[in-house]
Amino acid sequence: MTQAVRDAMIAMIHEAQDRLCAAIEALDGEARFKEDHWQRPDGGGGRSRVLQDGRVFEKAGCGISVVHGTLTPAAAAQMGGGKGLPADYPLTFFAAGISLVFHPRNPHAPTVHANVRYFERGDGDVEGSWWFGGGADLTPSYLYEADAIHFHEVMKKACDDVDAAFYAPYKQWCDDYFVITHRGERRGVGGIFFDDLRDRDALDLLAFVKGVIHGVVPAYAPIIERRRDLPFTEAEKDWQQIRRGRYVEFNLVYDRGTTFGLRTGGRIESILMSLPLTARWEYDHHPVDGSAEARLLEVLRTPRDWLGLSTTTTP
Amino acid sequence: MTQAVRDAMIAMIHEAQDRLCAAIEALDGEARFKEDHWQRPDGGGGRSRVLQDGRVFEKAGCGISVVHGTLTPAAAAQMGGGKGLPADYPLTFFAAGISLVFHPRNPHAPTVHANVRYFERGDGDVEGSWWFGGGADLTPSYLYEADAIHFHEVMKKACDDVDAAFYAPYKQWCDDYFVITHRGERRGVGGIFFDDLRDRDALDLLAFVKGVIHGVVPAYAPIIERRRDLPFTEAEKDWQQIRRGRYVEFNLVYDRGTTFGLRTGGRIESILMSLPLTARWEYDHHPVDGSAEARLLEVLRTPRDWLGLSTTTTP
Repeated sequence: MTQAVRDAMIAMIHEAQDRLCAAIEALDGEARFKEDHWQRPDGGGGRSRVLQDGRVFEKAGCGISVVHGTLTPAAAAQMGGGKGLPADYPLTFFAAGISLVFHPRNPHAPTVHANVRYFERGDGDVEGSWWFGGGADLTPSYLYEADAIHFHEVMKKACDDVDAAFYAPYKQWCDDYFVITHRGERRGVGGIFFDDLRDRDALDLLAFVKGVIHGVVPAYAPIIERRRDLPFTEAEKDWQQIRRGRYVEFNLVYDRGTTFGLRTGGRIESILMSLPLTARWEYDHHPVDGSAEARLLEVLRTPRDWLGLSTTTTP
Repeated sequence: MTQAVRDAMIAMIHEAQDRLCAAIEALDGEARFKEDHWQRPDGGGGRSRVLQDGRVFEKAGCGISVVHGTLTPAAAAQMGGGKGLPADYPLTFFAAGISLVFHPRNPHAPTVHANVRYFERGDGDVEGSWWFGGGADLTPSYLYEADAIHFHEVMKKACDDVDAAFYAPYKQWCDDYFVITHRGERRGVGGIFFDDLRDRDALDLLAFVKGVIHGVVPAYAPIIERRRDLPFTEAEKDWQQIRRGRYVEFNLVYDRGTTFGLRTGGRIESILMSLPLTARWEYDHHPVDGSAEARLLEVLRTPRDWLGLSTTTTP
């Protein structure tokens, strides 16, 4: 049974990477992805693709990995799943996932991040020994409500296609996860986030994460199309660079995938390809009250219910 | 007795901040430091000074702080000192320190960082309840051996003035501390680093840390004078920006002061004023073999005995 899930997941992430990269190249119109294959010394490997210094995208990275090996007990304890397994359950693991971050050049065009993964401990044959995780979220430098609403609508549909009860808690989980604690800000306007997902048949959940990752293009491409060629000022570019600095702060200080990867010796270039091409740290920068920059900060400090759903549930 | 040390340390860091900022303004020739006073809600406060977008310096920060309060047990356990104190020893603390990072604009001119601090637990009246820590280190983007040697010579003199046995282990400690583990690189060409220093009279150690912080100008100013106006190419500027990215990686992922500050609610802008104004992450960047960029990497991977001392001791 788990071999079938593994195989289907591996096929799905390969196809998704191809489709995502083709869509980004089409949106960019000029630059091409550079591809690297890498091997993990302890088992498995991956295929990283990065497009840099394009017409529309400053840096776009999309990587897949299929890895296996043995966790340290500390690493196992930090995982999103596997919590209820017996103490003597094997520390061997299998993981397959796809992850992407696209940073556009225009400060009015938002960054998008998405990631889905399937994880197994041991033979994945007992309750809690396999799970899915992932999500997709949007990080603008300037707030266009229509963009945030559109992105959430597409992600809600990816949820609803499997279970109408998914969106509300996963939207909340996303707002709770992407917090730059020391700034009291979220990284962006959210999306969905989920982990240790195993409440139904694995192939049904695989269909869900496939829907999420395939939702990225319809959720993101229309936004890029309407923002990529907007005129912008040097001051707006500087503000984007400051927001990129905050992106770096979140990823290096809080993101579990990144910090886990850095400490456990993953392929550094693939882990850090999520970082923007450039970033800026101005001392004690505060946007002027009532400015467009201040309006973004407001929504990063107090997340909104973009789709006007009256109730949200905590996961 | 400890009140005398506290008072002398407070006076010393105020005077040092004035002298350092005056020296940087003189080197820059144009920009001025902006000063902020801040209060810590739980006790004490500080004076941060930042110069930004100068002729010579892209960003120069120098801050002093005099704070007191109560540590969490977890925070106390992460400190450089106080390890051997009885379990029921008070968690109250006093800390006074000065810290600086100067990032010049010219890629041939190195960044410098220094910090000295005095720390007390409880009344600082038992063995191990007070200590000094600090150091100074140089981070070039291009290797000029004469600069590294000069910097180490001045720091060795600051050590030798108190104890000829200080330099070798503190040089080693610096090489061991400023490691970007996931890159297998040091941040720069080192200097000195020490912590939990309490092996002699506190006022003698105060004289030592005063010598270190007052050594920064003679160690650094001559280097800036000969590098600040060198011609440079866009490619050299890009390489500097990539090195700045590594600086950010070290500070956000590994630096104990930064990560401690972020997690315990210090004043964020003062903690992060060490970050460069701008930084760059190029995917999978490798300098050409034999290039000046590759020569820097070599010395970051294999630290050198700059002063040709035949033996080094580990601390």
